[in-house]
Amino acid sequence: MLDLVGTLVFALSGGLLGTRRGLDLFGVLVLAFVTAVAGGIMRDLLIGAVPPASIATWQPLTISVAGGLLAFRFSGWLDRLRSPVLFFDAAGLGVFAVTGTQKALDYGLDPIMAAVLGMLSGIGGGMVRDVLTAQVPCVLRSEIYAVAALAGAALVAIGPRLGLSPAAVLLPGAALCVFLRMMAIYRGWSLPSARSKARAPETDIR
Amino acid sequence: MLDLVGTLVFALSGGLLGTRRGLDLFGVLVLAFVTAVAGGIMRDLLIGAVPPASIATWQPLTISVAGGLLAFRFSGWLDRLRSPVLFFDAAGLGVFAVTGTQKALDYGLDPIMAAVLGMLSGIGGGMVRDVLTAQVPCVLRSEIYAVAALAGAALVAIGPRLGLSPAAVLLPGAALCVFLRMMAIYRGWSLPSARSKARAPETDIR
Amino acid sequence: MLDLVGTLVFALSGGLLGTRRGLDLFGVLVLAFVTAVAGGIMRDLLIGAVPPASIATWQPLTISVAGGLLAFRFSGWLDRLRSPVLFFDAAGLGVFAVTGTQKALDYGLDPIMAAVLGMLSGIGGGMVRDVLTAQVPCVLRSEIYAVAALAGAALVAIGPRLGLSPAAVLLPGAALCVFLRMMAIYRGWSLPSARSKARAPETDIR
Repeated sequence: MLDLVGTLVFALSGGLLGTRRGLDLFGVLVLAFVTAVAGGIMRDLLIGAVPPASIATWQPLTISVAGGLLAFRFSGWLDRLRSPVLFFDAAGLGVFAVTGTQKALDYGLDPIMAAVLGMLSGIGGGMVRDVLTAQVPCVLRSEIYAVAALAGAALVAIGPRLGLSPAAVLLPGAALCVFLRMMAIYRGWSLPSARSKARAPETDIR
Repeated sequence: MLDLVGTLVFALSGGLLGTRRGLDLFGVLVLAFVTAVAGGIMRDLLIGAVPPASIATWQPLTISVAGGLLAFRFSGWLDRLRSPVLFFDAAGLGVFAVTGTQKALDYGLDPIMAAVLGMLSGIGGGMVRDVLTAQVPCVLRSEIYAVAALAGAALVAIGPRLGLSPAAVLLPGAALCVFLRMMAIYRGWSLPSARSKARAPETDIR
Repeated sequence: MLDLVGTLVFALSGGLLGTRRGLDLFGVLVLAFVTAVAGGIMRDLLIGAVPPASIATWQPLTISVAGGLLAFRFSGWLDRLRSPVLFFDAAGLGVFAVTGTQKALDYGLDPIMAAVLGMLSGIGGGMVRDVLTAQVPCVLRSEIYAVAALAGAALVAIGPRLGLSPAAVLLPGAALCVFLRMMAIYRGWSLPSARSKARAPETDIR
């Protein structure tokens, strides 16, 4: 169930970006679908789960198309709803990160790499979305995004080592991811960057 | 046979773009090869046909290199031949879309996703070509391109349900794709886009 | 052992580019990891070696993170060390090209395609690095880079046909790649490009 919510929210985010960039209706739908499923597809190809879950059935496609149509039709209205969209996006990130980690563990990957693949499940769709619209993936640039996904994924990967059942760590993992992401948005939490390092000396001189 | 024509035409389109962008000879050849095979490789990875057909033998490479060399040597001449090149490109799109759909069906995918993968076989090469030259894939932006591929692919995917033999739908599917694409080019058929929506009010005011 | 050196050097190159582009610390680490492993992952997916070697264990990740941290912390210092970095990058390219070719041969690919996949192992990471930072991959644009990788890879692919043991061609192959790359950098060896063709007539007129 949560997976479908994540798919819809990511499709909305891809569809909104495509609409803003002036793509035609079909381009918007393609971008919505790619954003929703690319992360999971990368993970599935890397762990050998072929055909990937998002390709094996038509539900992810249907949900993505619905999300893309909503974004195309109501883009102005959705742009004003910035806060709920950011919250849902964080929720989608958290859900994909924890379920992706769980699936990688099920396929026998060691916990560290399973957490990395869980993170990839969460951030991969957005990366492909940004590359297709010819910009540096926002996940690389600023705000805590990939780190939030990794933190949630790590909790799920470490859980079994601490004797916790998988079900017991999935929700806390997703919640941790959402919490970190919300803090980054509303409190401005961020990581150091070379640009801020470069700016520091100038500030000292004044 | 038709598959080889599609490979050659797509290699020409990649090679021409690379030449226009001032890539060196080897860059042109790489771009020609990638444009010709990326769509089929994505499809093969997603359905589990490993190693992909374009990697398993050296014919696609040879044809792509030939196409890239032609594009590099005769780029001025080919640029003037715009109409035939567009027609061959549409033919390549149609061929890849229907053969890709057929292969996905053979690997047991359901008809809807098989059509999507057929479309991907047709448009994937051009998408990678455009991403590697740092532009938004033209397939997302304008004119009917992916839709034409999807229409042809859908015909092939639905065929067996209507009791038609695969061979009976392959050519009509490719022809439908070429027809839609030609209409988009010569009659200006297109899908709605957010930009045209945005422009509409201005036009009304005048 | 050499593989680990290649991983470290490629991680440094990705980390340096990310630092220069003002990515945050985590973005730098992601870019370092992707640059170090993307080429090998593409090769492994294409030959069906799943999960790819860089994902199956955590060593490549650890080395990449170390490389990314070094690049983030000492970027000014490393920028001044241009020559050693270029040499190590060439060494990494050569190592990845020959080991990639060897692995593709082991998986039963024919020699020509094995050499192509070896080249891809060497250049793939840099291509993804450049696409993620929204620029045309430098491997497509100028200087002998992919050609050097292909030459080294070809030597390894042809070796067995000449009755040489694999071990006997690995080092000469890597050395050939490093030699060609160094000549391109210090002697300006290059391939013809359409732009230089276009410029030629002007020179003739004077």
